[in-house]
Amino acid sequence: MNTHKRTEIAKLGEFRLIEHLTSDIQLTNKESIKGVGDDAAILSYDKEEEVLVSTDLLMEGVHFDLTYVPLKHLGYKAAMVNFSDIYAMNGTPKQITVSVALSKKFCIEDMEDFYAGLKLACNEHNVDIVGGDTSASLTGLAISITVIGSAPKGTAVKRNGAKETDLICVSGNLGAAYMGLQLLEREKIATAGKDIQPDFAGKEYILERQLKPEARKDIIELLRKENIRPTSMIDISDGLSSELMHICKQSNVGCRIYEEHIPIDYQTAIMAEELNMNVMTCALNGGEDYELLFTVPIADHEKVASMKDVRLIGHIVSEGMGYAMITRDGVEMELKAQGWSATSEE
Amino acid sequence: MNTHKRTEIAKLGEFRLIEHLTSDIQLTNKESIKGVGDDAAILSYDKEEEVLVSTDLLMEGVHFDLTYVPLKHLGYKAAMVNFSDIYAMNGTPKQITVSVALSKKFCIEDMEDFYAGLKLACNEHNVDIVGGDTSASLTGLAISITVIGSAPKGTAVKRNGAKETDLICVSGNLGAAYMGLQLLEREKIATAGKDIQPDFAGKEYILERQLKPEARKDIIELLRKENIRPTSMIDISDGLSSELMHICKQSNVGCRIYEEHIPIDYQTAIMAEELNMNVMTCALNGGEDYELLFTVPIADHEKVASMKDVRLIGHIVSEGMGYAMITRDGVEMELKAQGWSATSEE
Repeated sequence: MNTHKRTEIAKLGEFRLIEHLTSDIQLTNKESIKGVGDDAAILSYDKEEEVLVSTDLLMEGVHFDLTYVPLKHLGYKAAMVNFSDIYAMNGTPKQITVSVALSKKFCIEDMEDFYAGLKLACNEHNVDIVGGDTSASLTGLAISITVIGSAPKGTAVKRNGAKETDLICVSGNLGAAYMGLQLLEREKIATAGKDIQPDFAGKEYILERQLKPEARKDIIELLRKENIRPTSMIDISDGLSSELMHICKQSNVGCRIYEEHIPIDYQTAIMAEELNMNVMTCALNGGEDYELLFTVPIADHEKVASMKDVRLIGHIVSEGMGYAMITRDGVEMELKAQGWSATSEE
Repeated sequence: MNTHKRTEIAKLGEFRLIEHLTSDIQLTNKESIKGVGDDAAILSYDKEEEVLVSTDLLMEGVHFDLTYVPLKHLGYKAAMVNFSDIYAMNGTPKQITVSVALSKKFCIEDMEDFYAGLKLACNEHNVDIVGGDTSASLTGLAISITVIGSAPKGTAVKRNGAKETDLICVSGNLGAAYMGLQLLEREKIATAGKDIQPDFAGKEYILERQLKPEARKDIIELLRKENIRPTSMIDISDGLSSELMHICKQSNVGCRIYEEHIPIDYQTAIMAEELNMNVMTCALNGGEDYELLFTVPIADHEKVASMKDVRLIGHIVSEGMGYAMITRDGVEMELKAQGWSATSEE
């Protein structure tokens, strides 16, 4: 939280706080007719477009820890993970609405930081903030973001279209955000109550993956340019295993992925070793990568094989064959959805 | 909370809980293409329609008290107050998405009750639940609902169109929900720790106004039927004074309303007397009425004067004349926005 200047929110009150935070917002999309300040935002989508809507509720202490997450980063990430949901439908995010509930420990400057992060993410992805409100919370911060986007009619990609023999592809690399989280948690404990700064040299990448994830708009653009339409797609928020099983279950198919093809950054591998963790488990089950997982017809093999920052990791098989990873030594290991599940106690 | 049967949520886990709660949902609107179960919902709106979006974040202990609010009622109300925002734009609600964060005190049966209330409200207003997720909360319950609706292009009514000489109208009556809340709070204290049931005989109406508010779809339909297009409109969630000032400020006008015309139910008046409160203050500043406040051109006087359950309470004046109520004894009293403001300490 902001430690420099502190202006109590009660000074402004609820209405004027949201006015203060949103007064400089300019609507840039032609689909955004009327933004913050009425009972509802007014949008106008072309008849050739389908409208995509996704929503996310983030709770302090469950989804984020303000001990090491700056509020500006939190705003950036909260927006980004919502954009990611729209890209995962093969769509383009256009608007967000933002609701925040906050306890008395937060001041106006904190909310300014949070909105600065939101606005940065929105500028980068050309998204308008069209709705916002703030209210009180008894404990901590709750953030609810709804994203609205669009895709030309019939082009949205769902989870249920994967077919036998389709290739399984993933963007970027996996497990880095989870390793970044483990590092932050370790340093939080190590520096608690002490006046020392943790040394993160050589670990910048995994920290950035945790604190400042990027939604993969570039991959969607590349797919369009290459004229590839995935048969199914999802973004990886809960870990590769869990997301791949969502695709398989909704498509009534099975899968085989290959350990040797799972993309892992060297900082992820080094951190896993340092923490004595199995790096493959982190790549399969660590959350918050926000990479895209998708399937394409085998006929697109050459095209996807040459795509920048996309890896072929396996293929779709019949439902009866189940979900498995072939390890480096040729053993078939059943995949389990151990994905991060905030309400599960497993 | 449910006191009969208790099944821990961990038994199902996050994914299966939401599946369990939403598996019986049938999409009924032609605009709802794909609902719960993907990265985003897919909607398709006609090109002649504008899309309306509004969102609400409700926090336990701030916006509701589960000591006296049954979860089914809470679900019903959470949906209803969102529909109200779309009606207040002269639109029709079509879809909602629902995010819930819950602590360990809640069980599956609790969430079933909550969803039963949501579904009841949705059925009554022909709205589809197209998105939902559940996650954990450290303390209490947080509910975020986003409503999507539509209005034929150019027919949405904003807050900023009120003109001098326009008539100010309000539906239903005011202050009842606030009196219901005061009654519930009083009985909560009176019965705390005791095995007695409060006696609510003769007070059913104010309780219902607090616990089971109804969005005024009927008024919107009536306005259309009478061919009346309000110049501005808002729903009364924070009290008449505060909402009327929103309209005036955004429209750059002033207002005069008349105490003798403010509609108040007799149960509201009796309860105010019992609690030794000024009933007019309750009507002006008590929240959660969810009635519609709107302005119409003076040429529509006869039409609105004969509308069922609509009262003319005053008229719009020039900005310089400010905001005032004329009391029964002819005194001009300045209106103040003392509306319930969850972050204000005033």
